[in-house]
Amino acid sequence: MRIGALEAGGTKMVCAVGDENGNILERISIPTETPAITMPKIIDYFKERNIEALGIGTFGPVDLDKKSPTYGYITVTPKLAWAHYDLYGTLKEALQVPVGLDTDVNASALGEATWGITKGLDNSIYITIGTGVGIGVYVDGKLLHGMLHPEGGHILLAKHPDDNYKGRCPFHPNCMESLAAGPAVEERWGKKGYELADREEVWELESYYIAQALVNYTLMLSPRRIILGGGLMHQEQLFPLVRKKFQELLNGYLKTKELEDLETFIVPPSLNDNQGIMGCIKLALNEIEK
Amino acid sequence: MRIGALEAGGTKMVCAVGDENGNILERISIPTETPAITMPKIIDYFKERNIEALGIGTFGPVDLDKKSPTYGYITVTPKLAWAHYDLYGTLKEALQVPVGLDTDVNASALGEATWGITKGLDNSIYITIGTGVGIGVYVDGKLLHGMLHPEGGHILLAKHPDDNYKGRCPFHPNCMESLAAGPAVEERWGKKGYELADREEVWELESYYIAQALVNYTLMLSPRRIILGGGLMHQEQLFPLVRKKFQELLNGYLKTKELEDLETFIVPPSLNDNQGIMGCIKLALNEIEK
Repeated sequence: MRIGALEAGGTKMVCAVGDENGNILERISIPTETPAITMPKIIDYFKERNIEALGIGTFGPVDLDKKSPTYGYITVTPKLAWAHYDLYGTLKEALQVPVGLDTDVNASALGEATWGITKGLDNSIYITIGTGVGIGVYVDGKLLHGMLHPEGGHILLAKHPDDNYKGRCPFHPNCMESLAAGPAVEERWGKKGYELADREEVWELESYYIAQALVNYTLMLSPRRIILGGGLMHQEQLFPLVRKKFQELLNGYLKTKELEDLETFIVPPSLNDNQGIMGCIKLALNEIEK
Repeated sequence: MRIGALEAGGTKMVCAVGDENGNILERISIPTETPAITMPKIIDYFKERNIEALGIGTFGPVDLDKKSPTYGYITVTPKLAWAHYDLYGTLKEALQVPVGLDTDVNASALGEATWGITKGLDNSIYITIGTGVGIGVYVDGKLLHGMLHPEGGHILLAKHPDDNYKGRCPFHPNCMESLAAGPAVEERWGKKGYELADREEVWELESYYIAQALVNYTLMLSPRRIILGGGLMHQEQLFPLVRKKFQELLNGYLKTKELEDLETFIVPPSLNDNQGIMGCIKLALNEIEK
C-alpha cells in the first residue's frame, strides 16, 4: 500500500509516503509559510504519489469534533495565517482519498502505541517538551479527544520555592509550558537548553516541573507507560532526575506493578523521531478501516 | 429485571435492587465493619432477592485490571480489615451471577452518563468532594481505567499565597485532597464545612483549589461537562465561585462551545444522590451484555 502522512508543524510540513507496516518510503520537508503558498506544494506532493489514504498529525488547537461544522479546522493559533484554516477539508477535497486527522502529539502517541515502546499497552501518554509542551493520550486502545483534545501542556503547577521566574505563557504564569518549555529555560537562564547541559541546577529545576506534571498526568489518566520526547528531552540527564523526583512527589501513594520500575514507566521515544510520521500512517490506515 | 447494586463505602454498604431502567425498587444500608461481619449480611440480602446480576461501586484503591490475579481486590486502604480483600471474588462466588465492578466515583459518573445530566455526552467527569476527593472519568462512552483507575483527588496544586495550612494528606502536602477535602476545611478553620456556611473567606479559598483542579482535569481530559458532587458541594454558594475562578485561571486559553456557558459546564449531580447506586445498576447491566 501507499499511504500518505503529513506532520503539520508551525515551522515545517513533513510529507511522507509509507506502507501498511509503518515503513517510510520517502519524505520531504516544506517550510510552513501561509496556506496559499504552502498548501499547493503539499497537495502536489501527494497527488504525484497516488496515495490511497492520508493521515495528518497537526499543530493545534484543532477542531476534532466530527459533529462540528468546523471539523478539521485549525482554531486559534499565534500563526495567524493558519487560524480558522480548513486543513482537513482542503486536503480531503484535493486528494479525494480517506483522510485521518489528529494532533501532532496524539499522532506520536499512536505511532509508539502501534509500532513502538507502548505497543500492546491499552493506556499510555506521549509528552513532547520543546518550543511548547504537548500531550498525546491513548486510552483503551484509542486516542483521547472529548470536547477538543488534551492540552495538558497548560496544566497549572506549584512553583518551586526557589524559582522567581515569572513564566512565559501569555495565559498562565504557572502552567507547565510557562515554566518548563524550551523558551522558559532560555529566558530563565539566559542560554538555550543545549548550551546549559553541564549546569546541574538547570536540570534539577526542570526535572521538578516535569515530574510534577507527570504525577498529575498519572493520577488523572492512569497510563501504563509515559513517553517523554521533544527537543528538551535530548538532555538525557533529565530522565534519572525526573524519575527520582516523580517518586518523591508521588510518595508511594499508588501501588501498581507498572510503578515498581520507573525505568520502564518513564521512557524516551523508541522510533528515532519517526513516531509522529508513523502515527500519521496509522491514522490513515484507521480511516481506511472505517 | 431484578438487578443488584452495591455501593461499598468506608462507613456503610448500600445494597439495593433496581430494574433495567435505573429505577430503585428497594434498598438498605449496612454499617461497614470487618469483612467477616459485613459480607455475610450483604450476601444474604442479595441471595434472598434473586438478583440476575450485581454491580459494585467500591471505595478504593481497587484492582480493576482484568488480567491481574488480584482483580477485584481492595488494595491498600486505611481500613486495614479490608486491605487486600477479594470483594469481587467473594460476591461472585456466593451469588453466581454476572458481577460488574468499578470505583464508587466511576459508578457515579456512569449513573449520570446513563440517566442523568451527562447522558448523551461521550466524555464527562464526576468529582466528589467530601471526606476525600474522588474522580470518575467517562471517556468515549466508557469508564477510564488504565493501570489502575483515576486517582485525581491527589493531583498536586499550587498553594494559594495566603494559605499557610500544612495540608492533611499523609502523602502529599499540597494535593487537592490535602488542601480542599472536608477534613482539611475543618482543620484549617476549626469547624465543619456546614458550620462555616456564612464565612466568605472559607469558600473563596475552597473555590480557588477546586477551580485549579478543574482547570487541570479539563486540560488533560477534555470533558464536555464536569459534575461536582459530595458533601462539601452541598455548600451551593461554591458553584458560582468555582465557575468564576475557573474562568480566571483558564484565562481564555481553550475556546470550545462547551466552555461558552460555565453554568452548563460545571454542574451539580442531577440524580438526587442516587447516581452512585444507579451507576452500579448500569455496571451490572453492562456485565449481562457481555
